[in-house]
Amino acid sequence: MAKNTKSSSALHEKKGVSESEITNKDSIETIKKRRRHQPSAEALAQGIIKGDITYLSRAITLVESSNPLHLEKANTIIKHCLPYANKSVRIGITGVPGVGKSTFIEAFGSQLTTNGKKVAVLAVDPSSSLTKGSILGDKTRMEDLVKDPNAFIRPSPSGSSLGGVARKTRETIILCEAAGFDTIIIETVGVGQSETAVHSMVDFFLLLKLAGAGDELQGIKRGIIEMADTIVINKADGDNLKAAKIAKVEFNRALHLYPAKASGWQPKVTLCSALQQEGIDTIWDIINDYVEATQKNNYFEHHRNEQNKFWLLQTIEDRLKSDFFGDSKIKEALKSQLELIENGKTTPFAAAEYILSL
Amino acid sequence: MAKNTKSSSALHEKKGVSESEITNKDSIETIKKRRRHQPSAEALAQGIIKGDITYLSRAITLVESSNPLHLEKANTIIKHCLPYANKSVRIGITGVPGVGKSTFIEAFGSQLTTNGKKVAVLAVDPSSSLTKGSILGDKTRMEDLVKDPNAFIRPSPSGSSLGGVARKTRETIILCEAAGFDTIIIETVGVGQSETAVHSMVDFFLLLKLAGAGDELQGIKRGIIEMADTIVINKADGDNLKAAKIAKVEFNRALHLYPAKASGWQPKVTLCSALQQEGIDTIWDIINDYVEATQKNNYFEHHRNEQNKFWLLQTIEDRLKSDFFGDSKIKEALKSQLELIENGKTTPFAAAEYILSL
Repeated sequence: MAKNTKSSSALHEKKGVSESEITNKDSIETIKKRRRHQPSAEALAQGIIKGDITYLSRAITLVESSNPLHLEKANTIIKHCLPYANKSVRIGITGVPGVGKSTFIEAFGSQLTTNGKKVAVLAVDPSSSLTKGSILGDKTRMEDLVKDPNAFIRPSPSGSSLGGVARKTRETIILCEAAGFDTIIIETVGVGQSETAVHSMVDFFLLLKLAGAGDELQGIKRGIIEMADTIVINKADGDNLKAAKIAKVEFNRALHLYPAKASGWQPKVTLCSALQQEGIDTIWDIINDYVEATQKNNYFEHHRNEQNKFWLLQTIEDRLKSDFFGDSKIKEALKSQLELIENGKTTPFAAAEYILSL
Repeated sequence: MAKNTKSSSALHEKKGVSESEITNKDSIETIKKRRRHQPSAEALAQGIIKGDITYLSRAITLVESSNPLHLEKANTIIKHCLPYANKSVRIGITGVPGVGKSTFIEAFGSQLTTNGKKVAVLAVDPSSSLTKGSILGDKTRMEDLVKDPNAFIRPSPSGSSLGGVARKTRETIILCEAAGFDTIIIETVGVGQSETAVHSMVDFFLLLKLAGAGDELQGIKRGIIEMADTIVINKADGDNLKAAKIAKVEFNRALHLYPAKASGWQPKVTLCSALQQEGIDTIWDIINDYVEATQKNNYFEHHRNEQNKFWLLQTIEDRLKSDFFGDSKIKEALKSQLELIENGKTTPFAAAEYILSL
């Protein structure tokens, strides 16, 4: 199409978008200047340790990048931050869509900052690259927390694989801790394998439920109830309160059917109304009790070590598989061996032997 | 201790064990002669294809051996048998101890042979090397079936790893099919991961239950109920009958909560009394309906191919891992990196990168 200099048609009305009047020109200049100036990994790490949120955000962007140079820089930053990390309570929060996660995190996070805590809210949602961020994408749903100077909210890193998203989130936790955040909340949607991944990176796992939602079987089946350190029945207000109280009794009964947890902790069921800001303080008390009990019996430390070990082995196994099956010779052999299997000419074990011998 | 020629003490009464009078000396000679003569892989395969049970047993012993020469011979036999295999219905049977598996298999298997079927009964029990065969070890519990010329019973191969036991059983299935067995029953105990392994090698999965056993939650949690193509409530006789009927309604309700199966099959719940030999024919009808329906919609063939693919990938992944982590250099590096992680000097991801770079 030829370049149009005249706006003779309605299609070309937008010759230039006029600048919004509320845009602060000074801020734009500051941001542009910062962009031009690329601080070193060391400078970024030092900024993070001093609690500089801009530097924290930039480092997280490097962690989330797929550019190998960025990853190298991110690794250096993390290395510098590590001695300042780990001093936090990491809380996983899950629940099916509609359970009120955003409202809950808004109420819970605000109460924590009121009590002097510094709260980072992260998310794990591998589907977000498709749905353009179904959770935490819309920060307006947490309008108090987003303005709170003691809160830091970061949407889910994008990525097609849960493994990639999980790695990015785990490294972001370290950066946030180094920046002085003492309470890390990791939100995930109540579907797929994301909950297991989040469970393996937090100290305390909180399951949000609604009374009478009828998804108990799903929760039991997928092992979510088993992972919970506390079940919070949300929207326990108004006409819902009676049903919520019944649900509390039922969940308590269900929880007692499970064998004792390695942490020695008996999961608690509690009611809350995030909307009415009721029952929130009880939840923080429960988490404090948990941390105290597990630090006393050394489970807290032990559990973090086990998680690190799990992620180390998981990362190695993922790479062994992707390296092996990514090889074009193996791909071809796999294809032809699968054909032989389909035609009954070989067994899976003989085929595996052959492929491994290449 | 000095050799005692005189049986002067009660401790030395057994100077020699006298031969049992029921031992047939001719049989011993025949067995010894056969042992001395080692038939070739080809001869064994030909014997199996002709339906020679002795040759079948010997080939299975080779499959189960840990001697590499035996394994090589076993692979040759399997290769010769493959074109004659796969023409069977493979049925997995599970249930917790005490549910009456042996009695059920005795009644079910006997009914099948009466109807002209040739039935092989195998078992997967990785714990059997410790417990000396908790299932199918004691063939006397199936005294009719063990004498039936159209039945072949083989206890679980021993082995410390489920993967090894599963491989041996899958290859034994092929040998049994080549020997003309058209119905393969694979029994497993209702604990651990064995059920998942058996599920991935059969066409039809049968779950034996008792009324009011109270282990429903466990079954749901471990995904066993989800795997079942039919739930058979055993011991539905006498005073138990009423409870069994109630359990049938409950299991039917629970099954309807699950999403539809890929096979298009809606799992059935049925009652039986293996002891009274009641309800057994219904079970065979259900299995026949299943086979007919899934052969019609091509799921039967598709499912077997998927199973083979699964075992191919599983075998490769297991070997990649055991080869990698078995390397002494990797072992050492893993140990030191784990220490660095414990002391907060590195992250799981950086440690994995390092170990993978060795």
